[in-house]
Parts: sequence; structure tokens; C-alpha cells
Amino acid sequence: MNHNKKNSRRGFIQQTALASAGIILATPIKMFAEIKINKNMSKNIKTRGYAAKDNSGKLSPWEFERRPVGDNDILIDIKFASICHSDIHQMKGDWGEQQYPQVPGHEIAGIVSAVGKNVTKFKVGDRAGVGCMVGSCMECDNCRHGEEQYCDKGTTLFTYGYPDKTSPSGITQGGYSNNIVVTEHFAIHIPEHISLQEAVPLLCAGITTYSPIMNANFNIGDKVGVAGIGGLGHLAVKIAVSKGAEVYAFTTSKDKVKDILSFGAKEVIVVDDLDKLKPFKGKLDYMISTIPVQFDLAAYSSVVKPHGHFTQVGMPAGFEITVSTMGLGNNRVNINASMIGGIPETQEVVHYCADNKVLPKIEIINASQINEAWAKVLHKEARYRYVIDAATF
Amino acid sequence: MNHNKKNSRRGFIQQTALASAGIILATPIKMFAEIKINKNMSKNIKTRGYAAKDNSGKLSPWEFERRPVGDNDILIDIKFASICHSDIHQMKGDWGEQQYPQVPGHEIAGIVSAVGKNVTKFKVGDRAGVGCMVGSCMECDNCRHGEEQYCDKGTTLFTYGYPDKTSPSGITQGGYSNNIVVTEHFAIHIPEHISLQEAVPLLCAGITTYSPIMNANFNIGDKVGVAGIGGLGHLAVKIAVSKGAEVYAFTTSKDKVKDILSFGAKEVIVVDDLDKLKPFKGKLDYMISTIPVQFDLAAYSSVVKPHGHFTQVGMPAGFEITVSTMGLGNNRVNINASMIGGIPETQEVVHYCADNKVLPKIEIINASQINEAWAKVLHKEARYRYVIDAATF
Repeated sequence: MNHNKKNSRRGFIQQTALASAGIILATPIKMFAEIKINKNMSKNIKTRGYAAKDNSGKLSPWEFERRPVGDNDILIDIKFASICHSDIHQMKGDWGEQQYPQVPGHEIAGIVSAVGKNVTKFKVGDRAGVGCMVGSCMECDNCRHGEEQYCDKGTTLFTYGYPDKTSPSGITQGGYSNNIVVTEHFAIHIPEHISLQEAVPLLCAGITTYSPIMNANFNIGDKVGVAGIGGLGHLAVKIAVSKGAEVYAFTTSKDKVKDILSFGAKEVIVVDDLDKLKPFKGKLDYMISTIPVQFDLAAYSSVVKPHGHFTQVGMPAGFEITVSTMGLGNNRVNINASMIGGIPETQEVVHYCADNKVLPKIEIINASQINEAWAKVLHKEARYRYVIDAATF
Repeated sequence: MNHNKKNSRRGFIQQTALASAGIILATPIKMFAEIKINKNMSKNIKTRGYAAKDNSGKLSPWEFERRPVGDNDILIDIKFASICHSDIHQMKGDWGEQQYPQVPGHEIAGIVSAVGKNVTKFKVGDRAGVGCMVGSCMECDNCRHGEEQYCDKGTTLFTYGYPDKTSPSGITQGGYSNNIVVTEHFAIHIPEHISLQEAVPLLCAGITTYSPIMNANFNIGDKVGVAGIGGLGHLAVKIAVSKGAEVYAFTTSKDKVKDILSFGAKEVIVVDDLDKLKPFKGKLDYMISTIPVQFDLAAYSSVVKPHGHFTQVGMPAGFEITVSTMGLGNNRVNINASMIGGIPETQEVVHYCADNKVLPKIEIINASQINEAWAKVLHKEARYRYVIDAATF
């Protein structure tokens, strides 16, 4: 809002001529935001955020710039960004060396404050979100079929830390900040009947669990397991319950049991010893694991019926997991992994969760509390998603 | 044969009264074998074989004893036993500490030379084989459904190195020897139209690849990949070809190409660099890997179509493999592992391969050549299964 003082009423009118009729009903605030367009088209966007400056796993304030709003871009004034375990993994270099400063955050929502001349999907004032990716080739089979995260050419541009020549810092910079410029294709509409703060976790945690759960194609009443009940897992429980599954939740945190039952789980198993899995051997129709560290995948997957499927979505350090081939042989379960979901399906999960009131359990924090929140995530103390109020950047 | 000199004609007549009418037609050699029964019923059986005495990976001659032939047992005079990479892994302690001396070998065939009083499946003189297991609970769901290797109670008794109180040495002792006592249920009929030496590799290599290939349920003309073209892999190629697949074989041994094409493979890919896999990304309907060491499972499985299946049957050291969860996420392939196959299916593969002339490519060696053969197996020089002539023990 504070970038726009020089923009004229005339500029606003020129822009709105290109926008949909809906803009006529825009609030004065939206109109004010609209006026920014001319300026943003030519100049880098000044941004405030929290960045990792090294692999210490600590963030601190950083002022940086985004690219100007291009013809196919929108500028979003970020209102909320939430904390994903992936943010911590990547900033600490668990998944490879990083360029710093780097701003994490790939669960982002706010209000569109500028749109490029070719943009048709959004107008200024719209509620919009950004998830785990901000670009891809858009030409290959996967991109054309809405699976941009699996771009055949390997050009998927993830939201932070990926080389991006359009970014003044040389890499994509994420959502722990007060604005973001993104190609319209990679932005998601946030409908009016879900709060922005409850929508943000859907853009990674939601889609990452929704996509494999939908792909598992289970029947109503089937037994579905969820292992690891954090940010992703608690949404997996809620989504699977809402889709009609009888959900068995496996957690190592005894003090989450009551919460998880309130999410609709049929039973919560506190796996303080792998023997706790044994009574469930071969009992479940499907299982999803969000566990983001090395764990005994063969033991966990043995709760699925022979020839059933088990999906790993948690990404451990090094993106690697060591698994017992003998254990897998014994349990005859099919193991797969899944990476987020494409843009159309991300839009679908947001609509689905808004429509069906499948909402994350969140705690809103200020930017200054990020480091403390990260420590809690690592200590399994998050209940269940920290959402940063972007006004505090 | 040389155990029977004291047995009488009378003893033979008593025993044959219990046997099927077929015995009337038995050859003199078969009758002679029959006479052993009385002796074998009460006394341990003297056996000569080659054993590991420590984890050096070297074998040497060893004389030991088998249990007496019990009421449900048969005694097989072993004619041939073949060498599986598993023998080497286990004797070297790659899969855990071992008790020594231990006789490896779980691809075994010979002639039945005695049968217990309850035995109905075999008669003296029958051609019989033993594969990877010699016992299980026989009561649980898996055992009752012919999946004894997955015994729900974990009682599957593998052919060598497993605690067995009926064995004078305290553990099961395998087939690198001149005889074996086995419960009739765990012995396999070898039909007359396959040689014993060509049948032996079917009892592990054959069933281990046949079972998942059948379970994959592909259609005629589907593209099936086989990775690792050794003892198991060359049979996998032949079985998949005989089942109507278009087979793509992936090997690291350039000098196997001609052989593999002669087995019926459509194409052989020499994977001297993982980049050789790239042109096949997402092209195959199914893949089986026999690779018995750590390898890039995500890279190999990426040649399968998204949502297709990949089966690992090779068992690396420690029964463990480290896999890229990101790679699996990217290729969206379902990974499973498979352990041999049950007794009914083992009988099926022997019949199938005999009927359809799906035969292993073998090289017959003497017992004294075992250590040399093991070295060749480790150096990928086996072409493709070494079969030990048991007369040389």
C-alpha cells in the first residue's frame, strides 16, 4: 500500500478497463492497490522478509527486491505465510548446498495488488495464493496436463532457492516476506469462504497429502493409515476422513492423541516402539507417511494389506531413505512417493477444503517468532501449522 | 547309493506295500534306493558337502549328518545343486552373523531314495527338488494358501543357516552336498522332460522372478524391463519373453549383449552410465530388478511409466537399499519387493519352464571348483548359472 502514492486516478481507470466487470464493485482498498500497476511494470519491487544467511537454521530480517511485474505476472501483497518442515530442511542445507541469503516459504496467501497486461486469471483485489512452485516449461506433456511439478524438461521452478535469472538475487525467494511476484499460472485463487490464514497450509501440506490420497482411489469405509501427524499429517487425517475413510493415525507424540481423535481419526496409535505396529499388520487398505526423517519404512508399511499401496511424502535429509528390501518383500506392499501436486489440483484442494470445512489447525505468529517456531517444529511441538502474519515483516 | 548294502529284499517289499502301484514298474536302480528306508528311519544320515567354516567367503569339504527320515520326510540323493548369489551373501555374513560350519545351496535336485510312512506326494525313485525353504507352520493363512515364505508366524525355515532343532548341527544345512532330508511338502516334483541340471536354477532364480512377473499381470506386447542379467535376470528375460512381453534388458556387462538378445530380449541397454536410462524414461509397463547390491533404484525405476510397478528381488548386503525419495516422487513408480514364491507356485514354474522349454543357461562344475565359481559370480563372470555335479562332493 505504501508504494502507490504517486499513482493517479487516470492510471487506475486505464487498468480497470482491462479488468473484469467485478472490479466495479471493488472496495476503496482494492482500488488503491490497483493504482500500483504502472510503477510495478518497470521497476524492481522492494520487499521485506526473513532470510537464512547461512545454514545455521536461523533466520533474520532481510530487505531485497523482486522482479518488476511482467506481462504475465501478478504481484501479491502477502498477508500470511506458513511454516513447512521443508523450509527448515532446505535452509539448513539438508537437501544440498544453498545460496544465501534465501527467503523460505511456499505456503503464501494475500491480495493481488498488480497484474501484468496479459493476465486474465486474476484482477487486482483478488485473494491469491502461491505454493511450492512458480514456473515450469508449460510445453511438455506433464506441464500441459497440469503436473508442472513433474516437468519433463526438469524446468520446474520451486518457490525459493532455485536459480532464476528474473530474480534480482539470482534465485527464487519465498514467502516469508511482504510481497511476491509470480506468473499468473502459478497462483491459486483463494475463495471468499476460507480465511487466508487457514488457506495457506493447503498450498503445500494440503496438496501434498490430498494428491496421493485422491490417487489412492480408496472406497468409502476403507481403512487408511496416516503416519506422522504434523502439519501435513493432520491435514491428511482430515482429508481422508472427509473422503469417507476410516483413519488410523500413527504418531510418536502421545500428547497429540486427543487432537487427532478430534480430527476424526478412528484410532490413534502411539508408536513409541515399532512393536505397536504389529497388531495392524496387513490390516489397512492404504497408508500415507509424512515422516520427514529416516524411519523404518518397511515396518510402517507392513500395516498395509499385501499388494496395497503406501505413499511417502515426507522428504528426509538428502532426499534419501534406507529401506529393508527383506521387509518390503515380506509385506508385499507397493511403495511410492509423491511430490506436492499440479496447479489445477492445488486449486482443487483449496476449493475442496473451503467447501467442506477441512481446515488446518493453526497458530498465528509474528515474524520475530519464526526461529522459535522452527525449533518447535523440529521438536514436534507445532500444533499443527505456524502461520506468520506478514504485516509483521 | 552306497548307504544301502545291508538292506534286505524283505525290507523293500514291506515298504513298497505302502507305495503307489507305480513302484511296480520301478527300475532296478529305483528299487535299490527304496531299500534304504528302514535304516534311514532311525539313524542320522551321513552327508558330504562343502561348507563355509567362517565368513571368508571360502568353502571347503565337510562331513556332517542330516536328521533321520521322519514320517513326513523324504530323503533325496542330490544330483545337482546350483550357485545363487544369495549363498555368497549369507556365508559372508552380509545378511547377519552366521553359525558355521554352514552348507549353502537352495537350488537342489536329485532322486528320492527314501520316504517316511506318511509320505504320499513322492515315492522312491521320483525326481525331486528343494528350493529356498524346508519348513513353515502350515497353519496360518499364508501357509494354508501356499505362501509359506510369508508365514504369518515367521516360522519359515529357510534351507540353510536357520535354527532347526531337528538338524544334528542345530541349523538347516543346504544343498552343496550329496543328500538332503526334507518334509515332503517342501519338495518339488521335477518332471521327466527337463534335465535335473536345468531344473535346479528354477528352484530359486526361476521362482523368484516368475512369481512377481506373474503377479505383474502385464498384457501380451507390454514392455517389460529386467535389470541385472545374471542367474535370476537371464531367467526373468526368458520367462517374460515366453509370457509375451517385449523385453528390455539392462545390464552393466557389455559382453552379455549377444547372449541376452538370444534369450529373446527386444533390446539390451548397457548401463555403463545412468544417463543410458534416460531415453527410456516412463516407457516401460513393468520392471523387475535382480541387482543384488546397492544401486540407484530411483533412476532405474524411472524407466517405468508413472503409476506402473517395479519389483526388486535382488537382496543387497544388510537386506537394505538407500533410495531417493525425491527420485521416486519424480517418477511416480510403485516399488515393491518379492521373496521367492510359495511351494505351489514353485511347482508351477518348474512345470511351466519344462513344458515351454524356458531353460537356464548353465555351466556344470565339480565341487572343487566352487570357490572359483563364487569369485566369478562376484565378478559378474557367471554365464549364467553354475551347477555343481553332486557326484563330486
